[in-house]
Amino acid sequence: MEKDQKFPTVLLFPWLAQGHVTPYLVLAKKLAQRNFHIYFLSTPIILESIEKTLAKQPSSNLCIQLVEFHLPSSPKLPPHYHTTNGLPPHLNFTLIQTFQMASSKFSTIVDTLNPNFIIYDSFQPWVATIASSRNIPAIHLYTSGIATFSKFYHILQENIREINCDINEIAAQDLDEIDRQKVLGGIALKAFEQSNDIVLVNSCKEIEGKFIDHLSQLSKKEIIPIGPLIRDAIDEEEDLEIIQWLDKKDESSCVFVSFGSEYFLSKKDIEEIAKGLELTLVNYIWTITFPAGVTTTIEEVLPQGFHEKSEKGMVVKGWVPQARILGHFSIGGFVTHCGWNSLLESICFGVPIIALPKHLDQPTNARLMEELGLGFEILKDENGEIKREEVARGIRKVMENIGEVKNNVREMKEKIRMKGEKAIDHLAKKIKAILK
Amino acid sequence: MEKDQKFPTVLLFPWLAQGHVTPYLVLAKKLAQRNFHIYFLSTPIILESIEKTLAKQPSSNLCIQLVEFHLPSSPKLPPHYHTTNGLPPHLNFTLIQTFQMASSKFSTIVDTLNPNFIIYDSFQPWVATIASSRNIPAIHLYTSGIATFSKFYHILQENIREINCDINEIAAQDLDEIDRQKVLGGIALKAFEQSNDIVLVNSCKEIEGKFIDHLSQLSKKEIIPIGPLIRDAIDEEEDLEIIQWLDKKDESSCVFVSFGSEYFLSKKDIEEIAKGLELTLVNYIWTITFPAGVTTTIEEVLPQGFHEKSEKGMVVKGWVPQARILGHFSIGGFVTHCGWNSLLESICFGVPIIALPKHLDQPTNARLMEELGLGFEILKDENGEIKREEVARGIRKVMENIGEVKNNVREMKEKIRMKGEKAIDHLAKKIKAILK
Repeated sequence: MEKDQKFPTVLLFPWLAQGHVTPYLVLAKKLAQRNFHIYFLSTPIILESIEKTLAKQPSSNLCIQLVEFHLPSSPKLPPHYHTTNGLPPHLNFTLIQTFQMASSKFSTIVDTLNPNFIIYDSFQPWVATIASSRNIPAIHLYTSGIATFSKFYHILQENIREINCDINEIAAQDLDEIDRQKVLGGIALKAFEQSNDIVLVNSCKEIEGKFIDHLSQLSKKEIIPIGPLIRDAIDEEEDLEIIQWLDKKDESSCVFVSFGSEYFLSKKDIEEIAKGLELTLVNYIWTITFPAGVTTTIEEVLPQGFHEKSEKGMVVKGWVPQARILGHFSIGGFVTHCGWNSLLESICFGVPIIALPKHLDQPTNARLMEELGLGFEILKDENGEIKREEVARGIRKVMENIGEVKNNVREMKEKIRMKGEKAIDHLAKKIKAILK
Repeated sequence: MEKDQKFPTVLLFPWLAQGHVTPYLVLAKKLAQRNFHIYFLSTPIILESIEKTLAKQPSSNLCIQLVEFHLPSSPKLPPHYHTTNGLPPHLNFTLIQTFQMASSKFSTIVDTLNPNFIIYDSFQPWVATIASSRNIPAIHLYTSGIATFSKFYHILQENIREINCDINEIAAQDLDEIDRQKVLGGIALKAFEQSNDIVLVNSCKEIEGKFIDHLSQLSKKEIIPIGPLIRDAIDEEEDLEIIQWLDKKDESSCVFVSFGSEYFLSKKDIEEIAKGLELTLVNYIWTITFPAGVTTTIEEVLPQGFHEKSEKGMVVKGWVPQARILGHFSIGGFVTHCGWNSLLESICFGVPIIALPKHLDQPTNARLMEELGLGFEILKDENGEIKREEVARGIRKVMENIGEVKNNVREMKEKIRMKGEKAIDHLAKKIKAILK
């Protein structure tokens, strides 16, 4: 088929986690609005929720075809676990292993759909290999912050030979945690290296300019920031109770407390955060998440005397409309685990960050926010435990606008808003140029 | 995936002939305009030309994904012969045989795309079988006239057992012409019978009401007329020379002479038609088609003294913008082989028909046009040969408006225009109801 067509088809293939699917889906919509025809590849359980989101689109019928990627199902990993959302943490690595084993299914799909272009994620370097053997350009969209990735890139590259061997051990059943991390690092590096001269990142020069430049030099690849790719508030379900509760509060008088869908707090953590909130006297909306299947109630995990619902706060189990909450005038701070998407959302809604990172890229992201003057980190004690006094201190710093943190966030928000969608326009042109 | 979705995906799979692809593509566009996401399945050589048409759409980005159906390639049937357009006639049956052998590829495609609904053509009853085994509703869109099909339906059904055996012989190398016709009849009947309670037809009550009712009763299926599905003139390439030539002629002063892309005239036929045109004194645009690869020039086949280009007429080799020509004010009659799509186009542009049918459904279609008062048939001699006097007589009858033929066509055109796209709206609702 001729390549210089009016509606090039682009296949997008994110990793099976909410934090990856979200920016890929945002990109899918933006490309579809620019006359690309999109194939969006994911597992049925993930596509089911995407379908609901797409059905709510106010815009006209976007050309996004959802294509099912079937993982082999097993008693350990039934189809509803083909997503990291709600997956018991001990099955995370199993999901990654199973995903690697399904690469031959990807070949079949590519041969059927024959897309003009592919955009793929960190856990599937084989996408680039398969695409290349069919002369389909494939580029990597990295969904987390570049500050973290730059840090690891050098170390990973130094050990590339060893890592390449490690990757082949992905299927081994007896890998310890350190080996697992090595394998994952190797896979992510390979996904990056195999990208066709270009790597897309869900970031922007305003937030990570120096890291983007640094990684470009280091890797000899063109790193194209196309972010922030964040959800529209309108795509979310409403939760009238929460919004009506927020409506009654004064401007910037509340904090939103959320650690994402895959960071589960211990009872001890919950107690410290609860007590910390009590110390500050601010209003709060706090969402607590449990792994799928866990039937614990909020009441059971909250410290005695701390009420699920009060004049001052609401504690909610599970999902809340995060973008709608962050966009509400009454929210003045975001106590967050510093997942990259949460930070981008917070910035785009002009909400300062109160960082409580756990692991992965989160600590580096937290430091980046402090460095940019967009928030403060809640310090942990010498054993890495959350402490109520520090929770309260972190919240107070933001609410009292120490270091002009509120103004800084608003300025950053404004800079990003002013850029509009130039980065996506540029990407659309770039893809068309590659296809010429 | 849940079935009650906002943008159901419909896979359309026409037979590999222009006359089939055209109405399927028209339907694809109309369904895409009604928020269906379309997969359009065909061979790369056919998709290449469709892509050019789609790129010219004035409408916004329609969600039509072209999906390649690869036939096994052989020295006898290389990829550019994976269409009946320009295929040497002796390879027609080979193409049908090869197509049958590719049914397993269809399974793979369905498993990858997992469409909500399938609309399929006459030469692929296995589509219905494969769809049914996956619980995907599949209905047949029959692209020719129902008058012919009704006629055959009864005979075919009587001999269904014998025919079913015949179908299995499709791969045999030594079938004679009669056996081949039996096999093809059997395949078409099976495609019809396997359709999910409903059969769509590219016709309308105004043209074939009584045949549609008759076939409904006979077959116990709901026959839904969704026609006429005809090309927009705007989808065609322009041919300025022809259009400028027509611009200079008086209203209804010319005939358009065309026998479609798959009906090749003998030198003798060409001479009789040429002489017939000379006898009438009307202006004409005449397109002559040769099988692909034939390098004969127009000059070589025209009788001596009959000029390729004159004040009175133009003879053109190969493709012309048929819809643009039929829509031109200077065209007053259409000398046609009575392919179903040509007849529908002629009616929709209000042009009376001068019928010169050859085989298949064409003779019945010609008689139907006469019966409806929309045209006249050019009679052949006792040996079935075209005669110049009869050519002239047929043309004159139309140009002299015998039997009010011009008014009848205009009335029919108006009736069809008034209906608008109600039939397609009805179909869209029907599909959504089936998917509930």
